[in-house]
Amino acid sequence: MSTSVYEQRRENLKRLLTEKEIPALLISHAANRYYLSGFELHDAQCNESSGWLVVTADGGDSLFTDSRYEDAAKQVWNEKDLFIYSANKFQLVAETLRSKGISTLGIEPKALHLFDYDKLNSQFSLLSTDNVVEELRVIKDADEIRRMDASIALNHELFDHIGNFLEPGQTEEQIAWEVEKYFREHGAEELAFSTIVGVGPNAALPHAIPGRTMVRDNDLVLIDTGCRLAEYNSDQTRTFWVGDTPSDRFKETMDLVRAAQQAAIDIIKPGLTFLSAYEAAYAVFENAGVARMFTHGLGHGIGLETHEPPSLSKAAKGILKPGMVVTVEPGLYDPQWGGIRWEYQVLVTEDGCRVM
Amino acid sequence: MSTSVYEQRRENLKRLLTEKEIPALLISHAANRYYLSGFELHDAQCNESSGWLVVTADGGDSLFTDSRYEDAAKQVWNEKDLFIYSANKFQLVAETLRSKGISTLGIEPKALHLFDYDKLNSQFSLLSTDNVVEELRVIKDADEIRRMDASIALNHELFDHIGNFLEPGQTEEQIAWEVEKYFREHGAEELAFSTIVGVGPNAALPHAIPGRTMVRDNDLVLIDTGCRLAEYNSDQTRTFWVGDTPSDRFKETMDLVRAAQQAAIDIIKPGLTFLSAYEAAYAVFENAGVARMFTHGLGHGIGLETHEPPSLSKAAKGILKPGMVVTVEPGLYDPQWGGIRWEYQVLVTEDGCRVM
Repeated sequence: MSTSVYEQRRENLKRLLTEKEIPALLISHAANRYYLSGFELHDAQCNESSGWLVVTADGGDSLFTDSRYEDAAKQVWNEKDLFIYSANKFQLVAETLRSKGISTLGIEPKALHLFDYDKLNSQFSLLSTDNVVEELRVIKDADEIRRMDASIALNHELFDHIGNFLEPGQTEEQIAWEVEKYFREHGAEELAFSTIVGVGPNAALPHAIPGRTMVRDNDLVLIDTGCRLAEYNSDQTRTFWVGDTPSDRFKETMDLVRAAQQAAIDIIKPGLTFLSAYEAAYAVFENAGVARMFTHGLGHGIGLETHEPPSLSKAAKGILKPGMVVTVEPGLYDPQWGGIRWEYQVLVTEDGCRVM
Repeated sequence: MSTSVYEQRRENLKRLLTEKEIPALLISHAANRYYLSGFELHDAQCNESSGWLVVTADGGDSLFTDSRYEDAAKQVWNEKDLFIYSANKFQLVAETLRSKGISTLGIEPKALHLFDYDKLNSQFSLLSTDNVVEELRVIKDADEIRRMDASIALNHELFDHIGNFLEPGQTEEQIAWEVEKYFREHGAEELAFSTIVGVGPNAALPHAIPGRTMVRDNDLVLIDTGCRLAEYNSDQTRTFWVGDTPSDRFKETMDLVRAAQQAAIDIIKPGLTFLSAYEAAYAVFENAGVARMFTHGLGHGIGLETHEPPSLSKAAKGILKPGMVVTVEPGLYDPQWGGIRWEYQVLVTEDGCRVM
């Protein structure tokens, strides 16, 4: 990717920092760091320790990392603003920033451990900030949309493959591993999250960990999965019928779920409240007398993280804007029977939305 | 695993808390939480948010998590001491602990975000602690050694498989994926860390990310990999020669590396300083005039985390004790040529050590 994408995002951040009177921001949240620098997201969902980025409101920016990541950093970052620490991390950060006249430093309290805070606090006047970079990330730029389209395209391919693959005798675990292998062998860096596979009643569990339950003839199988490709996540759910003829209950429930999904997609456009999107799907279920079986929100933002703002749910406040990418994933669940969920990701456009 | 293993560990922790005058400890580090409760390590290396455990010095213990993990928690934890939060996390923690008379709470500063600290700080008198649970974890108990033996056995099997698998024309990426597939298809939960595969000169890179470099006939291939099985990590390195007859340089370098490794293993026993173990390997290289090509420490502790205390290196302070498990992984590197590393894990026994 061209460096200028990251420069552009840092320019946007600098404007926001100026507005908020934050002279410099230490970015310790890995997805935020990657968004602003292109530096090292791989495995970063598991690892906050591979580096810190400091962006100033009106001066140069600095990237700090250790020698393991030096080569990767040099590929995306100017060497003169790159600082490699070993045991001297806090001293190097303090000296570097002080030499640039920085004495007040914004921090990300949800992504900074107390240990690091204490060390920095003895050197700087620290300002807690609230989702500054996340505020930018909620609107996807053209580079991000390109990558998300690629990630989602592979997710669609995966479900074509899995639709042909499923047969009686397979366990949930085996199906989950087939999903992961397919993603990995077709270009994904890794799963976006642990795949959910629920056979029959297990499909009604909110957090179904794939187990030894076996698919039998005439079973339903719910699969909720996604991949990370070019660093961006996809997240899709399908519910399959394994057998010749779906049961009436399966068909009726599926029709309702798809109708609820379509009702939301039909009205999603800039200016719509998050709550209204949720309510559009809810109304379909309410009219059919099954609303109590819809036990979660309608969707969530997605991008560098699988779950990011906004949330399309009962308690959500705010309105949709062009460039937001959200999941639309209504479902109906009965612990005695099973569940059906169908999930797309949609991009809010200037005058509506596009199912990705 | 039997619950009593976890109870026993909590008893040990309670003694340590009493000694250190910490009335209660909030455990937010996922590996520590799992060690003391059996609750939910899977994916926890990426996720600190699935729950908090509070262990008191002389009273009951409490586990806090959200509804996604309720079922998993009930499998290992008494329901009356299990607390499920949604948006009310901090309120629930505060009320529960206050009702038990807890007003002073130890915390783990390297595993607690500032955001959480601030919320807790308004309710409790907080005490920063330093590796209290890690102090216990450094000595592995019988249950842990059983699991580590299983994890390491699979790692040995993997290298038997890979020795037969390697051939000219394969890329580093392809080899890394074969490693991961083998582990996953033979019972491992996941990789212990991102597999390192270095062909030829790439073997000399400290953090070789598997790329498109292809193995040719008469190439060396360094593979450093491990798996997580029954939640415990293995970590092993082998360096292979692909071709009929290894070069003289390969053979000579390999002999030195194996001799250095053996020199350390020969003297590892309780009471030996970490430094002396390192120096035993170093001396072999020094006598051969190649010590400058040995650019890292000799080894590290391993268990629920791939890298944990102790460290066997130049700067390390402390002595080996029965029950410690450490890697012994000398290597020699030349960026123009390549590198050879060979890594075992050893368990310190009452009178020496056992290569696992």
